[in-house]
Parts: sequence; structure tokens; C-alpha cells
Amino acid sequence: MHVLILGAAGMIGRKLTDRIIADGTLAGRKVTRLTLHDVVMPATPADAGIEIETFASDFSVPGAAGKLIAGKPDVIFHLAAIVSGEAETDFDKGYRVNLDATRMLFEVIRADESYCPRVVFTSSLAVFGAPFPDVIPDDFHLTPLTSYGAQKACGEMLLSDFTRKGMFDGIGIRLPTICVRPGMPNKAASGFFSGIIREPLAGAEAVLPVSTEVVHWLASPRAAIGFLIHAAGLDGKALGPRRNLTMPGLGISVGDMIAALREVAGEKVAARVRQERDPFIETIVAGWPSRFDTRRAYDLGFTADADFKSIILAHIEDELGGQIA
Amino acid sequence: MHVLILGAAGMIGRKLTDRIIADGTLAGRKVTRLTLHDVVMPATPADAGIEIETFASDFSVPGAAGKLIAGKPDVIFHLAAIVSGEAETDFDKGYRVNLDATRMLFEVIRADESYCPRVVFTSSLAVFGAPFPDVIPDDFHLTPLTSYGAQKACGEMLLSDFTRKGMFDGIGIRLPTICVRPGMPNKAASGFFSGIIREPLAGAEAVLPVSTEVVHWLASPRAAIGFLIHAAGLDGKALGPRRNLTMPGLGISVGDMIAALREVAGEKVAARVRQERDPFIETIVAGWPSRFDTRRAYDLGFTADADFKSIILAHIEDELGGQIA
Repeated sequence: MHVLILGAAGMIGRKLTDRIIADGTLAGRKVTRLTLHDVVMPATPADAGIEIETFASDFSVPGAAGKLIAGKPDVIFHLAAIVSGEAETDFDKGYRVNLDATRMLFEVIRADESYCPRVVFTSSLAVFGAPFPDVIPDDFHLTPLTSYGAQKACGEMLLSDFTRKGMFDGIGIRLPTICVRPGMPNKAASGFFSGIIREPLAGAEAVLPVSTEVVHWLASPRAAIGFLIHAAGLDGKALGPRRNLTMPGLGISVGDMIAALREVAGEKVAARVRQERDPFIETIVAGWPSRFDTRRAYDLGFTADADFKSIILAHIEDELGGQIA
Repeated sequence: MHVLILGAAGMIGRKLTDRIIADGTLAGRKVTRLTLHDVVMPATPADAGIEIETFASDFSVPGAAGKLIAGKPDVIFHLAAIVSGEAETDFDKGYRVNLDATRMLFEVIRADESYCPRVVFTSSLAVFGAPFPDVIPDDFHLTPLTSYGAQKACGEMLLSDFTRKGMFDGIGIRLPTICVRPGMPNKAASGFFSGIIREPLAGAEAVLPVSTEVVHWLASPRAAIGFLIHAAGLDGKALGPRRNLTMPGLGISVGDMIAALREVAGEKVAARVRQERDPFIETIVAGWPSRFDTRRAYDLGFTADADFKSIILAHIEDELGGQIA
């Protein structure tokens, strides 16, 4: 089995690569070849024991997608995207990459009539827009309030339509906000959801810019990789024509997140979270969804993190070598 | 006020043209100029008393949209589309016209930063896909089961996003099935909804290929034109960011349609409907929505036909000169 990952240099892409190499199999078949692509050159994992090619290119350039699928990968993970903030400030770039390049990829797959790979596309909760019911059902309408969300929604429509026509076998998964996201603090409005856990565990202070009552839909990096792996092996017939699924998550309040941090790492660590409310961020966050009823995904075997404590423990194990500062 | 109609040679386009000329105003302003466009040359209405230009071009060709908006129309009705059946059999043509040309139109409007027209876009109930609840709410998800529906859903996403960004002021309206559609019988799977009324009134037999219990969401041509006119004058602020609306209709069974025909035109006319069930058409129709709760559209002042009897009477008045065969 040959696997292609678009967006392989990103956090999710790297973790997915590692997981596939560690598993050695995907969708019940032995992985023999891995193609890794991103706009910057993805690192080649050492001692993987399988054939690995890496590519760096702007896949929104006509012709780029063709080179990537020339080796006819059996499973394509399409994780590549211009993120929300940049798609909002650079309208043309967002549409070019998130919509046009996605469509070009789909078109080159379609052009080979004998070729029908599984395509796993990462969509986003940004396809939804406020106001929301308390719990958002699987059949809630798509009314994005960002260009990124509009582009992902169009990607979902194309994915379903190309799949319905038998051009490939696609699944779109809407990932929750990833928490705890490893790495440096960033300026994303959602950054604090990870920051208030990651920074205190590493010995640093973290600012909480919103009320502790804010509830958000979260999944750990481990859970997110689990969704991607599960989607790769899912029976397309069980899915039917509705190919885009909201992924399970934890709908948890910031207060409960900090309480879990206290339970896992003690008061000293939890006290490193300093609340400093920021009306600008509070307004943005107020427009985000809090809780979903992801019945379809559950029925199809996708599983969320057990609780927020396990998310913290997994972060300590995966990112901190088991050590709390 | 300068008005542009794309798709002006079609049934809705022609009736909209006539209505605008008859009214003399749109959105509370005097109409002084009308630009009519289609892929075939639209007829120039006689004695309109205002400046009328007509154009024929393939507006999916780059550059075509620019010529159309060179005169900076204040209101643009975008009715142009490859219909459902053709978009399903000619995948490339459907995407080229229904998605790419729509986007090119939006992009040329955007390119002029000082220009912000009202754009009224006709979307379709084909953005929805079975299975459905008994009554479909305004916040039901978009899961099209045709390429046409996928293309219209993408058009809706673009319309909302360009509007949110202030590039124009768009409204998307999802029209019910138009009944009674004037003209010749056609091979569309939905053709019988009009055929079973139009043909008997004109002295001809009509075949009913489904059960009399089938319920469908209908609006008269008059109501559809009313939606377009109302959308042109609607306050964008009252709409908010959710710019795509399902239009009110009548959710009526075929049996009740025929009963209304009998009431209006007598048993002799109603007896011209002959039931001959067609499993192929029955299967297609079973995948279509029946009833909607179009609360948002009602709250915004869109109004449906009063009942099916008035739809028949309007058809007799508008299309048959008041005469039943």
C-alpha cells in the first residue's frame, strides 16, 4: 500500500507520518511506500524501513498535483491548507490553495479513470457559523463566517460530488480544535486553549483571555491522528453519500480544563494560568461552536478522547518525555 | 437604476424582464436601463420606454463577465445555469458554468472596489439531499446528491463570503419547483408536476408517473418572480451573514393538485390525467424534499402562493388568455 500525505510538514502531518510508520499497516494492509509533500520539504523519518519520497512544491500551481499522484497512491491524506487567519487576510491565496488546489488534486485523480483512491480530506468546524444551538447536530447547516470556512465547505461539496460520481472514494473529517497543540505559543485566537495547558506544564506562565465558562470542542493530537487513520480504513458503503463528518471531541469549559491540569500537575502548575480578559478575543471566541452531537461519527467507529485528564497525560508522555516542569 | 439579468432568455428571465418593465421601478427606485444577457440572444421587449441592451455570450469564457458589468448595474439577477440533468451528464460543463462562471462574475465585481451591487443569485433545493425530516428547517445541512446541487451549494458559499467581505451585497434564493411551468412538455423527471395541470387545461392528456400521495414543494412563476423582486429590495442588514434562503412554497400532494384542477376546470379536464407509474421516476422523486419550514424567508417578507387553486387560476390568466380547452 502506497500512502500520500499532503501537508506532511505540519504538526498533524508529522504525527500521522510517525504513526503510519510505527503501525506498519493502514486500512488492514502493509504500507510499503510513503510519499510526503508540503510547501516546505518534509523531513524524511529515519530508519522507517519502507520507501519514502519527499516533495516540496506549491500544489496550487497547475501540474503540481499530477506529479504527486503519478505513483497512484492507494490512500491520499489531504491535510494541506492555508490556515484561517491567513486565508482571511489574503483572500486570493486562500481560495487558490484551499479551493483551487484541492479541486486540481481531485481533477487529476479523476483524469485517470482506472484509479479510485481513498481520499481523506481535513475539513474544519469553520464550515459552521454562529448563532448555534446548545448542541450542534450532524445535520446543522453550513454557514461559514470566514473565507477559510467557505473554502473548506466548497471542498466538502466537491469531495462528496466526485465521490458520488465514482471518481475517487473520499471522506471529509471536520477536526475539533487540537489541544494540547505542541510547539511555540502563536497568535491564533484559539491559541490559548493549548497555551493554558502547554505553557504551565513547561514552567511558563500562560494568559487566559476569556471567561472560565467558555466551552470549546477539543481533541488531542492523538485523537486527531486516530480519526485520520480510521477514516483511511472506513468502508465507503457504510458512509453512504454524506461524506463529510464532524469528528467527536470533548466539549469542555476552560474552568474544567484548568481543574484537570490542577489534578494532574498540582496547584503550582495550575497557578501559572493568569486570567486577563481580552474583549477582542472574547468576541471572536463567542462566535465559535461549543458542543456537537457527533452521532454519525460515533456510529462509524470514530472515538474521542476519554476525558481532558487523559489529554494532558498524553501530552506529558508524547511531548515532555513524562516530565512536568 | 440599472438592472442586469443573466439568463434573461429563460422562462424566469423573460417573466422577470416583463415584470420589471411593467413595474417601472425596482427596490423603490425608477428603472432607467436594463441589460439582458443569455447564451442565446434575449428578445428585446417592445415599447419598454427605457434603455435596453441585449447580449449573447458564453459567460463562462474569461472576460465575458467583465463586459456585462462594465455599465455597473445596481442590481444583478444571476439566473444563468446549466440545468440539473445536463450538469449531471456533462460534468465539466456544469462546473464551468455553474461554479466557475459564477465565481468569475463575483471576481469582476470584486475587482472594482468602489462598486457594490445587489446580486440576487438563484440557488436550488438541489443543495439538499435525502434522507429528510418530514419538514425541513432553515438550518438543515447541505448534502447535495447531484453535481448541479453541489455547484449551487458552492455558489452559495462564495456569495456569502464575498458579501461578508463587502465585495458585493448578495442574496441567494432557493426556488421551489416551478408549477405551472408554461411551454412544451419536457423530459425532466419533475416535468409531470406542471404537465398534469398544463396539458389537461390545454386539451391534452398528461401522464402521472407517481403515486397521488407524492408531496412536493411548489411555487408559481408569479411567486418566483415575486421572490426575485423582493430579494432585490431587501435590506442587507436585516439578512445578516446567512445570505442563502429557502423560498416559501406549497407542500402539496399530487392528489390535492388534481383535486384543485377538478375544482377549477371540471371533471372533464381533470380526467385527462392518466396515472401510469414509472418506477424510474418514482425512485428519483422519492429522493426529493417535500416540505420546508421557511421561517426566515417569511420573516423577511417573502410570500408564497395562497393555495394551489390560485396557482392554476394564475396560469389560466397568464398563459391561456383566460381560456380552458
